[in-house]
Amino acid sequence: MNGFPLDHVGVAVASIRDSVATFEPITGATCSSIEELPEHDVNVAFVGSIELIEPRSSASPLARFLSRRGPGIHHVAYRVPDLRATLKDLNTRGFHLIDEEPRPGARGHLVAFIHPKSTGGTLIELVQHGG
Amino acid sequence: MNGFPLDHVGVAVASIRDSVATFEPITGATCSSIEELPEHDVNVAFVGSIELIEPRSSASPLARFLSRRGPGIHHVAYRVPDLRATLKDLNTRGFHLIDEEPRPGARGHLVAFIHPKSTGGTLIELVQHGG
Repeated sequence: MNGFPLDHVGVAVASIRDSVATFEPITGATCSSIEELPEHDVNVAFVGSIELIEPRSSASPLARFLSRRGPGIHHVAYRVPDLRATLKDLNTRGFHLIDEEPRPGARGHLVAFIHPKSTGGTLIELVQHGG
Repeated sequence: MNGFPLDHVGVAVASIRDSVATFEPITGATCSSIEELPEHDVNVAFVGSIELIEPRSSASPLARFLSRRGPGIHHVAYRVPDLRATLKDLNTRGFHLIDEEPRPGARGHLVAFIHPKSTGGTLIELVQHGG
């Protein structure tokens, strides 16, 4: 295995509480407490390497995702050592970035998303631990 | 982080060769050679922790996935130490298993899939390294 390590996989669910009984046995992990991210209009909780994400309102982009595609895998996140440098590199290569600058995400880390239009349909998050 | 480690994320693409230029810069990794898996009716290649999967025929379940949902994330794979024991445990808990027994997968490993109907929409693969 080479390259950036996987940080987590985001899974869209209607309700985090209702999903814990499914994901704990599959991942062999215990669900974290729920973290509220009003600036992203979602709540999140981690079950091992799975980030369960529920919408906070019907206007949340995640609510639109759920109504369009149903619950399921929402994004893949990589851990990078220097998020700002990686974004600059991807921008130079012509990738469409949702976030051109790092912004605060779950667990106090810095995050940025790459638009699925420039990745062949996969929403990718980059995470720099430590914020 | 607790629980089973993430092994890889499977991404459905129409063409592995056409996707390499997208995934190498994002993952910071170099694409492996293409492995043919006729028994799964797909070809696969690994770019770091991403498994690019292309259909080998229009009858492939992956071709149906692509025509229904378009390219994008297809499954999440966990590495487990004893696949047979994990399958037995999940079966006892009422999970719907696509593979009740381990079968050969990519890179010579043993694999089994859990049906997305019992995981709230997420196709999950379990991988035991070493086969």
